[in-house]
Amino acid sequence: MQSKECGEKRLYFNSDYLAGCHERILQSLIETNLIKAPGYGTDEFTLAAKKKILNACELEEGDVYFLVGGTQTNDTVISTFLRSYEGVISADTGHIATHEAGIIEVHGHKVLTIPHKEGKIYPAQIREYMVHFHADGNNAHMVQPRLVYLSQPTEFGTLYSLQELKDIREICNAYSLSLYVDGARLAYALACPENDVRLPDLAKLCDAFYIGGTKCGALFGEAVVIPEKRNFPFFPTTIKQHGALLAKGKALGVQFDALFTDNLYLQIGKHAIELADKIRSALRKKGIPLAVSSPTNQIFILLKKDEAERIGKAVELTHWDDPDDEHSILRICTSWSTEEEDVEKLLAIL
Amino acid sequence: MQSKECGEKRLYFNSDYLAGCHERILQSLIETNLIKAPGYGTDEFTLAAKKKILNACELEEGDVYFLVGGTQTNDTVISTFLRSYEGVISADTGHIATHEAGIIEVHGHKVLTIPHKEGKIYPAQIREYMVHFHADGNNAHMVQPRLVYLSQPTEFGTLYSLQELKDIREICNAYSLSLYVDGARLAYALACPENDVRLPDLAKLCDAFYIGGTKCGALFGEAVVIPEKRNFPFFPTTIKQHGALLAKGKALGVQFDALFTDNLYLQIGKHAIELADKIRSALRKKGIPLAVSSPTNQIFILLKKDEAERIGKAVELTHWDDPDDEHSILRICTSWSTEEEDVEKLLAIL
Amino acid sequence: MQSKECGEKRLYFNSDYLAGCHERILQSLIETNLIKAPGYGTDEFTLAAKKKILNACELEEGDVYFLVGGTQTNDTVISTFLRSYEGVISADTGHIATHEAGIIEVHGHKVLTIPHKEGKIYPAQIREYMVHFHADGNNAHMVQPRLVYLSQPTEFGTLYSLQELKDIREICNAYSLSLYVDGARLAYALACPENDVRLPDLAKLCDAFYIGGTKCGALFGEAVVIPEKRNFPFFPTTIKQHGALLAKGKALGVQFDALFTDNLYLQIGKHAIELADKIRSALRKKGIPLAVSSPTNQIFILLKKDEAERIGKAVELTHWDDPDDEHSILRICTSWSTEEEDVEKLLAIL
Amino acid sequence: MQSKECGEKRLYFNSDYLAGCHERILQSLIETNLIKAPGYGTDEFTLAAKKKILNACELEEGDVYFLVGGTQTNDTVISTFLRSYEGVISADTGHIATHEAGIIEVHGHKVLTIPHKEGKIYPAQIREYMVHFHADGNNAHMVQPRLVYLSQPTEFGTLYSLQELKDIREICNAYSLSLYVDGARLAYALACPENDVRLPDLAKLCDAFYIGGTKCGALFGEAVVIPEKRNFPFFPTTIKQHGALLAKGKALGVQFDALFTDNLYLQIGKHAIELADKIRSALRKKGIPLAVSSPTNQIFILLKKDEAERIGKAVELTHWDDPDDEHSILRICTSWSTEEEDVEKLLAIL
Repeated sequence: MQSKECGEKRLYFNSDYLAGCHERILQSLIETNLIKAPGYGTDEFTLAAKKKILNACELEEGDVYFLVGGTQTNDTVISTFLRSYEGVISADTGHIATHEAGIIEVHGHKVLTIPHKEGKIYPAQIREYMVHFHADGNNAHMVQPRLVYLSQPTEFGTLYSLQELKDIREICNAYSLSLYVDGARLAYALACPENDVRLPDLAKLCDAFYIGGTKCGALFGEAVVIPEKRNFPFFPTTIKQHGALLAKGKALGVQFDALFTDNLYLQIGKHAIELADKIRSALRKKGIPLAVSSPTNQIFILLKKDEAERIGKAVELTHWDDPDDEHSILRICTSWSTEEEDVEKLLAIL
Repeated sequence: MQSKECGEKRLYFNSDYLAGCHERILQSLIETNLIKAPGYGTDEFTLAAKKKILNACELEEGDVYFLVGGTQTNDTVISTFLRSYEGVISADTGHIATHEAGIIEVHGHKVLTIPHKEGKIYPAQIREYMVHFHADGNNAHMVQPRLVYLSQPTEFGTLYSLQELKDIREICNAYSLSLYVDGARLAYALACPENDVRLPDLAKLCDAFYIGGTKCGALFGEAVVIPEKRNFPFFPTTIKQHGALLAKGKALGVQFDALFTDNLYLQIGKHAIELADKIRSALRKKGIPLAVSSPTNQIFILLKKDEAERIGKAVELTHWDDPDDEHSILRICTSWSTEEEDVEKLLAIL
Repeated sequence: MQSKECGEKRLYFNSDYLAGCHERILQSLIETNLIKAPGYGTDEFTLAAKKKILNACELEEGDVYFLVGGTQTNDTVISTFLRSYEGVISADTGHIATHEAGIIEVHGHKVLTIPHKEGKIYPAQIREYMVHFHADGNNAHMVQPRLVYLSQPTEFGTLYSLQELKDIREICNAYSLSLYVDGARLAYALACPENDVRLPDLAKLCDAFYIGGTKCGALFGEAVVIPEKRNFPFFPTTIKQHGALLAKGKALGVQFDALFTDNLYLQIGKHAIELADKIRSALRKKGIPLAVSSPTNQIFILLKKDEAERIGKAVELTHWDDPDDEHSILRICTSWSTEEEDVEKLLAIL
Repeated sequence: MQSKECGEKRLYFNSDYLAGCHERILQSLIETNLIKAPGYGTDEFTLAAKKKILNACELEEGDVYFLVGGTQTNDTVISTFLRSYEGVISADTGHIATHEAGIIEVHGHKVLTIPHKEGKIYPAQIREYMVHFHADGNNAHMVQPRLVYLSQPTEFGTLYSLQELKDIREICNAYSLSLYVDGARLAYALACPENDVRLPDLAKLCDAFYIGGTKCGALFGEAVVIPEKRNFPFFPTTIKQHGALLAKGKALGVQFDALFTDNLYLQIGKHAIELADKIRSALRKKGIPLAVSSPTNQIFILLKKDEAERIGKAVELTHWDDPDDEHSILRICTSWSTEEEDVEKLLAIL
């Protein structure tokens, strides 16, 4: 394989899951590789990782489960919350509403969308949705809203504030809705100076949330945090039924054990945010407008089409959208694996 | 973590997926770790691995997809073959019929079971099933059989012969059935002296089959081989929809590239079979009866209950079944990671 | 249409739902035809019918819902009991396991079959199934049994005794199983001298059961009796979601109001049983063996193949099965619409 | 039951399925009631009705199936068109997107909504949707659009013109989409002077459509017209699997036979449209504004809230929506069962 050289030739800022895993995680996988352990998450590495995460969340009770990827995690958790006649409220740009190939529907549930603002849905919108639903005399013929899905950070890199989450929780309580937060990129929220939502806040306000590994330094893996065990009976069976139970569960335990040792998870986030801030600062100086006010590791730049094309030849970015016939929005991602040197090269190109 | 010591204390023969991955796979993962690659299986490692597998199967056309685990692979492939009114024929002991938590049903399909004989269903049984189905005047109100699911080796370690597979293929042709083989432990069939079914035979006789990685030396991963591409339109979307699309697909490509370099896959099988044969030979000498005539890496021993209990305290085996009130069947598994020294210890205990 | 004459030419004993509806039901439909009523079962005819059925079941609380057909009723009720990881225990000859085209699976659930004896499963079998399930160390990877499905009478016309139902209820209590009885032909059980299970017994012992209309004198319709309302939250939404909510619900209410006025439901059953007994008595005299010891409106006769063929030309019967190469089992059904004169003709042919 | 008087007390204009069935249909049901016929749509009444409908559609080949209700019909047909990774395009006000309790999702499919204009989606919108979908580099992770769902008339009583349907068909051809039309109220379109889409046009332009019975004079029943049989293999099994196969199929055949004898279906539509036009004309004179430009049997009037409340006490109308805090939109429906005398009373109240 000559691909190593080939892979190093270009600049990659198109996503936050391009490389393998953080060196400390790799080191743990190497060290534990030959240890024989029982399967399906019953090994002691998994138990140790669970404890560390519960501690980080300031949960004395509660449970943690490790799954392989984000789509299967969203699906498995959401299916657990909902009966067949119930649906999940989401921003129309929510990952479950767009890029999970209909996995929520394939398991029988409707995604009830609310128009987003930079990827977020606001408490007032959710309240209005519920008021309108209950005012509809025909709502027995409609899917019953029973869960709110948020992502933190959102697919646009924006953040919910603690006050917003508290307000949404209050609405959930008023309307018997559960609250679930997709933290695929949670490290990049937690490490962000603008963020005031910590893990214990999520544990207190959510009925479930997940701490993303795949996009935050792990080779793969997502940690579902469940503050109240009794809401998830037979959850291992559900995980199995959704094809999301890794045989060699140890490989998940080892990775999350490393991520929650010596603050690695936060360090990973911090690295990405610092480089993203550096890029944002340079963009501001260059007068390149940002299409979204994201404070996290995703940066959305608005460019004329020819300029976008030129840059696309020199560096791998994500083509996000064409807001009109003359402009394109490109997405720049930093991650734990972004090197300072590459940032300099990127800025030189921009 | 003190678990390393702890993990090494005991003898483990209870399954073939207790350890991490083969050292050559680990080495490949380490070497490629920091290479940035596009996601979801579009990287060049994956392309290279696909080519090697197509070569090994003597397929010029055809396609290969890598998924994470066996349950999700069975589900994703079977869902692709079937319309909602169609079902899959399986031995009543088939993995899909028993230990996949109903994932086939959750995706809408009925598993149509035929009584097994040591894990196998025979051509005559399948033919009889189809004859009976077509004779039933009420079969428009029944699930239509459309696919035959076999496992090679079976869940009991037994093997289909080439002639049996050819006969089943013929019946499939006669009744418009597709044929799919679950090769979760395929390495242990391919390396078995009794086996006469090679990869090119499977590629010729099946509409799809998978080459198991998780139980055969990989950290995780299964390779679905599709001789005719046109039968699997939009398969990446289907994989995504079943939560089975790994974001960092490179990690799958790298592992299968290693498995299909320098015959590693066969070597892994060979190692396990040699040690299994050694155990079988010793059992014969000791007069411990085998409950199943498995020639592969799974050995099923019939013991009196108190004897089974005594052994269970000294070594980790799988309790398989209690054929009557006085006996138990225990399963011994060897694998790529079984050490000769441990086999000696096991035999000493037995 | 000249079909009336045509339809009258032959003798029909092949099923119990060949004709339209009982004259008293037809009369009610005619009388109420032009009355405008709100839809979906909120009309007063439906309310009146519900009350009459609750009275007949000696239920003070509880609820009754009317659906159109048996397959959709089984599916809708069973889906309400089960979470996706849960399955329903049924005889392998249960209607849901065979002739409902996989509707239970299409809604995500596995039918866990137990071998029948003349259509029945016995308390000891269910207990053994549960004991075995709980002894299986791998049962977290299996569909969890959560409901027992019985039919009364069974698909073979046999009956559960009150004691058997009580024993099954006790097992259900011990293993947290719910109990659901499919009463598609319930009128023919209730009217049977051998039967000791009355409607109030079913209401006391079951978590749900349905009183069949389609096969017992209605044009269509099944009445689901729910002793405990709280087990069926949002049931109208579930009914709608299963395509089982009749827009003109009044048409169901009117029919069941008639069926439960002046004991019509029992009279319908009685008429069919009396004629079936007459046939059975004649068969005994003629020495034609019965293949099943059914005391209800279904009679299964064992004939030599040529004899079966001869009879099949003279009268419409159901070809049930071929127990061996030389014999056939034919099914004779009586119903509310069977005429004494036709029975005489049938007996003359036999 | 004293409900007859009770039912006659009030004026009902709240829906078009309040009464039973048209007298000629009732007469047919009465006359054929005691005729014994094979079940599940294999009787000769059903065959005769199929032929009449194929004639009315000018289809020489093709097939027709009769189902009980609209929701189950939409679900069964749409499920037949779609593989699990495929979705159906619909107006966001389409019945399948709103008031069918998520039955499309429960069968695994996403409803891909486009914003409506008075209940319609326009060819340009569909084209733009498809252009945008194909331009999205990430669309392999999205549900693949494969079917367009329209209703004629729409849920707002508006109509697609023949030219619009032709344009949509052309777009469908360009993007490999199928076209399905929900004709729950088709009689009221066909009888409408503004309408230029006839049954043979639908048969020519659609891959399937249904002719509504429930809302157009039948007691229940919808006729699915399939111009190309080969697109619907095993359709009876699919119907059964969706709980939509009526045991006494004769009752459907008899009704549609009557509807398509001596132009009854058109007469039913004509009666409702004439009365609706009379109401519209009176509203215009009274200066009561219409909220939607519907030319069919549904009329949407915009009223001040107190006025809406006053009228709601005197006559049963459907509360449709509150466009602002001071106004309400009420829906008036006429149907085959609307009496001229009641229209006079309604106009007096308005």
